Amino acid sequence: MLPGAVLDTIKEDLLDWHGCGMSVLEMTHRGIEFGSIIKQAEADLRDLLHIPANYHVLFLQGGGHLQFAMVPLNLLGTRHCADYVSTGYWSERAMTDARQYGLVNVAASSESTGYDRIPPFEEWRLSQDAAFVHYVSNDTAAGVEFSWIPDIVAVPLVADMSTNLLTKRIVVAKHALIYACAQKNVGVAGLTIVIIRDEVVGRALPITPRMLDYKCHVDNASMFNTPCTFAVYVAGLVLAWIKKEGGLEAMDKRHREMSAKLYRFLDGSSLFENRVVRDDRSRINVPFKLRRPGLEDKFIEYAKANGLVNLRGNLALGLRASMYNAMTMQGVERLIEAMGEFERIHA
Amino acid sequence: MLPGAVLDTIKEDLLDWHGCGMSVLEMTHRGIEFGSIIKQAEADLRDLLHIPANYHVLFLQGGGHLQFAMVPLNLLGTRHCADYVSTGYWSERAMTDARQYGLVNVAASSESTGYDRIPPFEEWRLSQDAAFVHYVSNDTAAGVEFSWIPDIVAVPLVADMSTNLLTKRIVVAKHALIYACAQKNVGVAGLTIVIIRDEVVGRALPITPRMLDYKCHVDNASMFNTPCTFAVYVAGLVLAWIKKEGGLEAMDKRHREMSAKLYRFLDGSSLFENRVVRDDRSRINVPFKLRRPGLEDKFIEYAKANGLVNLRGNLALGLRASMYNAMTMQGVERLIEAMGEFERIHA
Repeated sequence: MLPGAVLDTIKEDLLDWHGCGMSVLEMTHRGIEFGSIIKQAEADLRDLLHIPANYHVLFLQGGGHLQFAMVPLNLLGTRHCADYVSTGYWSERAMTDARQYGLVNVAASSESTGYDRIPPFEEWRLSQDAAFVHYVSNDTAAGVEFSWIPDIVAVPLVADMSTNLLTKRIVVAKHALIYACAQKNVGVAGLTIVIIRDEVVGRALPITPRMLDYKCHVDNASMFNTPCTFAVYVAGLVLAWIKKEGGLEAMDKRHREMSAKLYRFLDGSSLFENRVVRDDRSRINVPFKLRRPGLEDKFIEYAKANGLVNLRGNLALGLRASMYNAMTMQGVERLIEAMGEFERIHA
Repeated sequence: MLPGAVLDTIKEDLLDWHGCGMSVLEMTHRGIEFGSIIKQAEADLRDLLHIPANYHVLFLQGGGHLQFAMVPLNLLGTRHCADYVSTGYWSERAMTDARQYGLVNVAASSESTGYDRIPPFEEWRLSQDAAFVHYVSNDTAAGVEFSWIPDIVAVPLVADMSTNLLTKRIVVAKHALIYACAQKNVGVAGLTIVIIRDEVVGRALPITPRMLDYKCHVDNASMFNTPCTFAVYVAGLVLAWIKKEGGLEAMDKRHREMSAKLYRFLDGSSLFENRVVRDDRSRINVPFKLRRPGLEDKFIEYAKANGLVNLRGNLALGLRASMYNAMTMQGVERLIEAMGEFERIHA
């Protein structure tokens, strides 16, 4: 979803951006028009997240998946091991790519309890010689979210924030690298945002393709190749919208309120349920199950008939309500209403 | 540039695609709506280019630059050498990345004559043990274009067609791999089209990141990660537009007519000139110089005041008129008129 106001602006700008006579879709990435768009987007991102001056902001392509390879290729250096914390599907995918280039130490995992929680920090078994520590701040599929930042100071801390960047305030300075694909909370597919501390740039392994070397993009201010110009433009609009709506505190408040309402319904339901440990429940993605088998498809159909779409999580991992930045309390209430109605019908 | 009709459709579809209640900007890539968009785009591409059944079509991210690394990583195999033909700036960039993974044999080069021609095939010195032969079918910066396809049968032939794919009919079957970024003739930045023969898929070097392995994308029908959905949608609209306009024959005719008119003007001008050998002149990109020094910036300003933008080639490589698929004869005539007027003023 995109905020309605952002969609309206895109439509308004479409044939002629700010009177320049060109659509954003037609701009060269090296012109002053796009130059002003990408600079403003970076400025707003820095402002919202309080990004310190010794961090670079990169606008890349390839999504989280390319980062799964870029992180080990750029950060392993002379060490051959990295610590990964597994909190679900996306952690596992990140590890698969990391294993191609080094030893992955699973420092902590909630696999044995069905990824229903965030492993408490005191249980993490960090290795002595890890080049970095990697965690996924919000696992979309499992519906678990870190409400705290791991206290890692000896080695670079890396976070995949693809699904909760810009949904609350975070301390960027505790991380060496943060990455997030844009299509969840910052716009549309085709853009990956990377926030990287200066000191970890320039350590890529010799086998690293140039396009996968953060230094190449830092040195060229994200213009080594043509960036996904339209996605950068949309991200800029969303960032401006977040500021106008009250910034990250306002986003966080909305996510807390929306998710609390949905969890309250689920916990009181005799048909629907969410099994995540309460303190680790995601404010963004709420997976749920139906206690009676065989009703899932019926519910999907019922919801669709009521205008509620995209409830089927990717890859057959079950049902999920995703409340990214553009979601409204009204949308959540409509979902709860439909669930309640469905429950009454099938009680 | 995008065709006016395509921009209008984008604007019309923007808030609600085909009555589905969603913007294309909001669709999940795994839904039936986007599924139908990407399938139709592939079908139209196959239809226009007569792509044989033993070729896969991939919709990727990363632009030509990522292909510069993907090609050697996927095709070098057990051989350590590849033949590259250098016809300008983009060939050189492709070679830089290839050298990271193998020996690059420059089979032919027009560097000594300032990239003013395509080296004749009889002068190519192909190596015995090359894993593949790579050429750039149209060099944007040099303004040279292949009017023939190299007759390579013993090893895979690879072509970077970023700036002239879909501007004329080509024989796909003569190539093992064709790649093109979309923002020139097929829409907007963020999408790279790859057409790859089945038999060369699955040969990636072990160091290849999964996201850079063609097999990974073939196996997942371009959905291993989230594709740049909006750019795929725009490409689909452009492909449909090309068909409606009369297909590749019609595109070719336009490019020939537009470029002929511009070359005729340049050849008769006392102020402007193009130095490319006639038979190798590009139908798409026409670089030109002013015979009198110091007038370039003045001309750019003059042209801009007359509504003609983007004449400055990237990277300070001089002036250039680019006539991609969306360009019209009217646009070319306006440029020629402005050049003629400028010539009269500064004669």
